[in-house]
Amino acid sequence: EAEKKRLLETLKGKESITKAGRKVKLYANIGSISDLGSVLKNDAEGIGLFRSEFLYLGRNSLPTEEEQFEVYKRVVETMAGKKVIIRTMDIGADKQADYLNLEEEENPALGYRAIRICLDRPSLFKVQLRAILRASVYGNIGIMYPMVISEEEVDQIIEIVEEVKKELLDADIHIGEVEQGIMIETPAAVMISDKLAKKMDFFSIGTNDLTQYTLAIDRQNPKLDKIYKPHHDAILRMIQMVVDNAHREGCWVGICGELGADTSLTEKFVEMGVDELSVAPALVLTVRDVIRNLI
Amino acid sequence: EAEKKRLLETLKGKESITKAGRKVKLYANIGSISDLGSVLKNDAEGIGLFRSEFLYLGRNSLPTEEEQFEVYKRVVETMAGKKVIIRTMDIGADKQADYLNLEEEENPALGYRAIRICLDRPSLFKVQLRAILRASVYGNIGIMYPMVISEEEVDQIIEIVEEVKKELLDADIHIGEVEQGIMIETPAAVMISDKLAKKMDFFSIGTNDLTQYTLAIDRQNPKLDKIYKPHHDAILRMIQMVVDNAHREGCWVGICGELGADTSLTEKFVEMGVDELSVAPALVLTVRDVIRNLI
Ligand SMILES: [Mg+2]
Ligand SMILES: [Mg+2]
Repeated sequence: EAEKKRLLETLKGKESITKAGRKVKLYANIGSISDLGSVLKNDAEGIGLFRSEFLYLGRNSLPTEEEQFEVYKRVVETMAGKKVIIRTMDIGADKQADYLNLEEEENPALGYRAIRICLDRPSLFKVQLRAILRASVYGNIGIMYPMVISEEEVDQIIEIVEEVKKELLDADIHIGEVEQGIMIETPAAVMISDKLAKKMDFFSIGTNDLTQYTLAIDRQNPKLDKIYKPHHDAILRMIQMVVDNAHREGCWVGICGELGADTSLTEKFVEMGVDELSVAPALVLTVRDVIRNLI
Repeated sequence: EAEKKRLLETLKGKESITKAGRKVKLYANIGSISDLGSVLKNDAEGIGLFRSEFLYLGRNSLPTEEEQFEVYKRVVETMAGKKVIIRTMDIGADKQADYLNLEEEENPALGYRAIRICLDRPSLFKVQLRAILRASVYGNIGIMYPMVISEEEVDQIIEIVEEVKKELLDADIHIGEVEQGIMIETPAAVMISDKLAKKMDFFSIGTNDLTQYTLAIDRQNPKLDKIYKPHHDAILRMIQMVVDNAHREGCWVGICGELGADTSLTEKFVEMGVDELSVAPALVLTVRDVIRNLI
């Protein structure tokens, strides 16, 4: 075990590249600013999923633009030019914030959540977008939108982002270049990924929710553990479909769900053409080791 | 309106066939034995979805084999040789039976329901299968299984059905030929429909649940009505994928969800190669009229 750990240590500073020379971007998922130390220590090449929910949870009111800006700025500065992909507010379902006054729902996982709230309440969405765009001058930011199911939603998002950019420019506030992408975590997004790819720079496949909807199984329901199969052929086929559709449009594709760190699938993902894996910081070096041993 | 009704009356006894000679099986959905009158009156060519839940709901204990047998026998005899597709118990989610002692679930639509209960409690499932198989000598029965997501489930179903058939034959009880099929109502079933088609005689696409899971939208949640789009491209592409996969394996495909009766899509469904539409009895002649006017 100690030997294994020592070997992984030697992989710090090395590339995540197969023996055949195929590079994979190996990023980390983080859920708060306190995870940053672990990201650096484990030599992640970027942050593939910055869950912004911690800014919204455990408090009595919405976080202000200034509060958010300070956090995003600190993260991108700490990452010093490496990519930081910030996922916009993914509240709803099992993550509730009382001050948003969300109603009780019969099936919260199939409910009013994430981008649905943001597009329904654009003023709330715009505060987060302003904070992210302002932070973008300090580093290399990507913005990622959760739970998208349609082209109409993407069009609305783009329109709102353009509005915010214009407001900032009109106020002489500088912004950097940002990539925009969506989580692919609904079967709908998979099936129309060819169309969505034309409008976005990248996709990140959220295998947890995607599996939940594809198998129609609440992954937190212990009664169904027996039939919940993360390696289900339907999921692997969806991933291939998304990669193929994305690459045809010059869009890159990552995986940020738990499956991304499943080393029994790393070889398959590389064969499929997956460009990025975003995993828990503590798993970065383990996955790098597997990639470097692939032929 | 009266004129329209008179015109539809003239379609009774006629075929559901396009001008180019393409026949579509036009069946009816029923939810209880009292719907049979309407099925006959509207000249449905069979029953594409016999929802057996009414036998299980609004009572204090499971229906006996004998009770079920009498109902199935009456339906197939009434239909006099026309196809009757009985869907096995689709309890759970919004259809609850107290005596089954199902636990409360956070997301019942993604929960312990339908075939999941049947495969978990095979003794209960076998009672229904015995009743259906016994009724099969009196007419033309198909058995249809709801909420399937995997080949393993289909294998288990086939094994249980074979056991029941053997038990009946050993007891000198006659059974007829039955077709077996599954509802395609989960994205998982769509994605592996090529494999499932090898094991089944037919598919019936349940567009209501399929849309709910594909779009990750509880269709009973009014907060999401604005974004619930039954004509979503993802759904139409899934239907095409299922038809193509099924036909390659000699499996026929119907649609029994609400979309099946949506006459703005009838032409598209025929072009896609859909073999059967199962609709509310009152809509049979309307859909027949549309089919007969297709080129
Ligand atoms: Mg998610
Ligand atoms: Mg259903």
